[in-house]
Amino acid sequence: MKKGLLIVLSGPSGAGKGTLLAEVKKKGLDFVLSISVTTRQPRNMEVDGVNYFFKTKEQVKNMIANGELLESKQVYGDEYYGTSKQFVEMNLNAGRDVVLEIDTEGAFEVKSKMPDAVLIFIVPKDLETLHARLVGRGTETAEQVAKRFGKAKEEIAKAVRYDYLIINDNIDTCAEEFISIVKCEKLKVHYESNKKLIEQLI
Amino acid sequence: MKKGLLIVLSGPSGAGKGTLLAEVKKKGLDFVLSISVTTRQPRNMEVDGVNYFFKTKEQVKNMIANGELLESKQVYGDEYYGTSKQFVEMNLNAGRDVVLEIDTEGAFEVKSKMPDAVLIFIVPKDLETLHARLVGRGTETAEQVAKRFGKAKEEIAKAVRYDYLIINDNIDTCAEEFISIVKCEKLKVHYESNKKLIEQLI
Repeated sequence: MKKGLLIVLSGPSGAGKGTLLAEVKKKGLDFVLSISVTTRQPRNMEVDGVNYFFKTKEQVKNMIANGELLESKQVYGDEYYGTSKQFVEMNLNAGRDVVLEIDTEGAFEVKSKMPDAVLIFIVPKDLETLHARLVGRGTETAEQVAKRFGKAKEEIAKAVRYDYLIINDNIDTCAEEFISIVKCEKLKVHYESNKKLIEQLI
Repeated sequence: MKKGLLIVLSGPSGAGKGTLLAEVKKKGLDFVLSISVTTRQPRNMEVDGVNYFFKTKEQVKNMIANGELLESKQVYGDEYYGTSKQFVEMNLNAGRDVVLEIDTEGAFEVKSKMPDAVLIFIVPKDLETLHARLVGRGTETAEQVAKRFGKAKEEIAKAVRYDYLIINDNIDTCAEEFISIVKCEKLKVHYESNKKLIEQLI
């Protein structure tokens, strides 16, 4: 059984992460989107173990203390969000590729714990497009947009520590690039099944 | 202008390097196969600057001394073979991808001088296939085949220091994998044009 690949996808708001993953799925790449652990209350229709793993703060603090989360953060000093190590490893060991859609801070935390994780960053093709997409949501004040724009640029600056950059000019091309990356990573010499084949041949 | 990618392809005799490159070309990947420098005499129909760059031993020794060869070796203590740095850099700078078909020793020499080079190793799917292909040539004695077989295993052992492993089970799949690798390498964050885009966005 070939072990699955752990893929981390990050990018500023409005870069198109969700659209990309939907397109990748549509093109037939079979992957598991990680289900986050959270302490916030379930909203309408949200189901434990489907949308999130709902936990109490006490539980999450224990999970962190026991090293059971690959990454975690406390948003506005209040609710916790994190990625369950057990969920990820269970899927990888079953040969399934797992995608985490998380921010740069989380990505680096995951990479430090799972060095084989592949880090992909998606960016809009230029700043005008990024700005337009943030404004385009139409739900925020100019000040809020400016703040998100600044935050987006800060995130993009961290892309240099990622493995791959996908430029969102055309979502179809982006999805093909994402799928190519997953294929290529399995051609790497250090990918488990390849290391084994080399051993068999020598 | 995007700089081209330098790709090194190695693999034991009989692994299918030549067939792979022909298939890759047929599938439309535009690359330049490096023309080696050699001191051996031109054979029938061989043209200087097309099949080889024919040089005297004196010239090659000077090229080595002046760092003008990316890799070189003297075969059976006699003729020299090498890769011209100028030829490779000229093509890369013109945006063309360059493929070097060389052995592991040459590959590591190139990598030390051009750290961005991508090292691809091709292997037959199992030892029986490798052996059958060596015998299949039908031009050598059992002893010669045994020697080549031993040498092939030695080469394969060095594949662990390569970037990618292509398993030659089906040449069509191999060619697609080769093309995917070239595409993916250009999605790497450290690929020149990607680094520039990140700088523009922040």
